[in-house]
Amino acid sequence: MTTPATATRLKGVLAAGLTLLNEDLSIDADATIQHTRWLLSHGCDSVLIFGTTGEANSFTIRERLALIDAIGRSNLPKNRLMIGTGCCAVPDTVELTKRTLDIGTVNALALPPFYYKNVSDDGLFAALARAIDGIGDTRLNLYLYHFPALTGVPYGHGVIERLLKAYPGTVAGIKDSSGDFDNMKAMIARFPGFDVFSGTEEYLLDVLRLGGVGTISATCNVTCAAARDVYTNWKGADADRLQATLTAQRKAFANVPVPPSCKAILVRHGGRKSWLAVRPPFMRAEPAAIDALMARLQAASFTLPAPAA
Amino acid sequence: MTTPATATRLKGVLAAGLTLLNEDLSIDADATIQHTRWLLSHGCDSVLIFGTTGEANSFTIRERLALIDAIGRSNLPKNRLMIGTGCCAVPDTVELTKRTLDIGTVNALALPPFYYKNVSDDGLFAALARAIDGIGDTRLNLYLYHFPALTGVPYGHGVIERLLKAYPGTVAGIKDSSGDFDNMKAMIARFPGFDVFSGTEEYLLDVLRLGGVGTISATCNVTCAAARDVYTNWKGADADRLQATLTAQRKAFANVPVPPSCKAILVRHGGRKSWLAVRPPFMRAEPAAIDALMARLQAASFTLPAPAA
Repeated sequence: MTTPATATRLKGVLAAGLTLLNEDLSIDADATIQHTRWLLSHGCDSVLIFGTTGEANSFTIRERLALIDAIGRSNLPKNRLMIGTGCCAVPDTVELTKRTLDIGTVNALALPPFYYKNVSDDGLFAALARAIDGIGDTRLNLYLYHFPALTGVPYGHGVIERLLKAYPGTVAGIKDSSGDFDNMKAMIARFPGFDVFSGTEEYLLDVLRLGGVGTISATCNVTCAAARDVYTNWKGADADRLQATLTAQRKAFANVPVPPSCKAILVRHGGRKSWLAVRPPFMRAEPAAIDALMARLQAASFTLPAPAA
Repeated sequence: MTTPATATRLKGVLAAGLTLLNEDLSIDADATIQHTRWLLSHGCDSVLIFGTTGEANSFTIRERLALIDAIGRSNLPKNRLMIGTGCCAVPDTVELTKRTLDIGTVNALALPPFYYKNVSDDGLFAALARAIDGIGDTRLNLYLYHFPALTGVPYGHGVIERLLKAYPGTVAGIKDSSGDFDNMKAMIARFPGFDVFSGTEEYLLDVLRLGGVGTISATCNVTCAAARDVYTNWKGADADRLQATLTAQRKAFANVPVPPSCKAILVRHGGRKSWLAVRPPFMRAEPAAIDALMARLQAASFTLPAPAA
């Protein structure tokens, strides 16, 4: 007997977790697992591994499989993870997702194949269908990763509708990183049971009030406490005030590259120096830029418990 | 003694070759090699393997290595090939390029890491430098693949200048698929010895007259004869007339997806039916669309010898 997929759906606050590196830019699996555990005990309901913030596409499939395996061997709660597995090459998506299921995580996040642009709805549907059929596992909760500014390949509502119809119970929801609140609103209204996560915690309260399920956000690597406050109290009288604080923290990151900046903030709060490392095309954050960012965050009531170093 | 890299530089007419597939969407290495050989004997000076038209990013690294190995075992002239090796993950770029050099092809085409957008010049330079250093082979002729409409990551002139300075003799040229003739012109003027290929045969004559070296084009899979005519006669009195014919053939492809359409044209001319297969997000060409395309091509004096079936 397998658990019905809907029973395992995620909700609430998810950080798009950082992938921590060694000085030689290889993945530091231990540090990444520690940071993930720290996120889970400091406000995050779940953690997304290998999203945009996790520099997923800067790693080879072999490197990604190795981290998934290391997570599998760790004592991280596998039901509180989502793993980014969408690649340009569908067989890579299949391999990464199968491995994700193998370690006991049923939640995968699917970027569309993102090299070709202006693809037809038929072509995008066919690519996703080929992936889902190739994975061939009814336990799967597949979340769509809608991030048109980076992929150039939006998941339009027509394609979502076709996917929901063809794969009910598998196509579980979406991380909408378009920043377009109207799109989140429209999907929540149009697709009942399709779990909409805002890709920015700025809209956490707004999507919850409309029937969305939470946020999956890059900056939650450091704003997790404030995001937790909103999620815990979202039906309370204080919700708007708490969201205003969270929004201010999120807005402190406007115009800074998020992964290197979040890594630098962790290091400022006691993380290991080597965590500053990022793969190009990212560059390490400049200390002066982090000074300015920290000042903006502190003006927004930012606090961070010591990270897992 | 290794041959000086400049002696091995490519020029003239290059098709961005199709990767022919089996019905199950696996690579048909034999057919791809046959088609490549056919291109080399029907007007192409050289062939680019695994460009955009070759659906490079729709294949896993393992699949790409397997085709490179098959090419290595074939009797294709290795010095008349260029292989696309640029990936989002730099270690993949390194592995594919090393294998390219292993089979005796020194010409590699580097897409930038194309997932992240708005990357800094420092970050883009660092990614390329990490790749070139990782490859660590002075035989390499690295061509940059400038295709902003698909990558969203342009190779700006500042980055090109830094790369030429840091890696003279290795950074050999560019395939400019921006369609922006002014950009080709500016690069030819600014970077002597940096070989500029137009990414469309529409500008073949224009770039040659300015000092560019040729074209690397998707549609040359089928316009190779007309492109040959231009290249052979570009200094002659007939050059403009020949280019007008070539341009008309190229323009017949406006608004059709090029890889499936070129595959369908080969099949219409005697290629095997299975060659119609493309990986999603591409879809097979609709017969009616190919009828219309063929009519436009025939109006542009198109002829095609029987492909290698």
